[in-house]
Amino acid sequence: MATIFSKIIEGDIPCHKVAETDNHIAFLDINPIAEGHTLVVPKKEIDYFFDLPDALMEETMDVSKTIAKAIDETLNPLRTGVIVQGLEVPHAHVHLIPLYKENQVMALGHNVNVSEDRMLEIKKQIAARVDL
Amino acid sequence: MATIFSKIIEGDIPCHKVAETDNHIAFLDINPIAEGHTLVVPKKEIDYFFDLPDALMEETMDVSKTIAKAIDETLNPLRTGVIVQGLEVPHAHVHLIPLYKENQVMALGHNVNVSEDRMLEIKKQIAARVDL
Repeated sequence: MATIFSKIIEGDIPCHKVAETDNHIAFLDINPIAEGHTLVVPKKEIDYFFDLPDALMEETMDVSKTIAKAIDETLNPLRTGVIVQGLEVPHAHVHLIPLYKENQVMALGHNVNVSEDRMLEIKKQIAARVDL
Repeated sequence: MATIFSKIIEGDIPCHKVAETDNHIAFLDINPIAEGHTLVVPKKEIDYFFDLPDALMEETMDVSKTIAKAIDETLNPLRTGVIVQGLEVPHAHVHLIPLYKENQVMALGHNVNVSEDRMLEIKKQIAARVDL
């Protein structure tokens, strides 16, 4: 069965897309734990991140780095952190989490409220800075 | 000033080392949030993970994958997750976190107690499975 991410990749479910390449898609997490929280997803449906072939995993991280730099320029956090957990959707993905303060809780499930208008605004601003 | 990780790399501070290559060192986190919690550290002292040059970041992730697979074989978690946060030590590093159950809290600071004897045992078992 197609994962929710595969449905997003196919365009069957909408997303706030910030970038897309042949092998990856990146979009704002619909349940952000910080403003600008973005997912980077290899299109190939592989469950466990560390089962990605080396070259694909490296590309996933290169894409993540490019997006993180765009997040940093757009939202000016202290830096952007990374979480790979993957027990919620069986399709490997990288969470990029802007960290705005030293003691910010960086754990999935600690959601913040971001309005739909703000999501659209952030999406456009990050997308405009991504060169992939 | 040398970071605590640089002091560990130089051998000035002891660690439970599981692997070392020309460019990286990996050792058990002294404040584990799960049994087997391991740090992978590029020897080059660069603060922000996403400031690592592409090739070095890719190598960091390749080493992390190899160590994660050794953790998985040794401790049999559901999988091994990743955190890159980096506000605590200004020297880029990857946290590898074995996830033993679905609802495990994966956040730095949520420490568990692991005895020194168990740390030594885990270190040896992981190290024996790492081929780098």
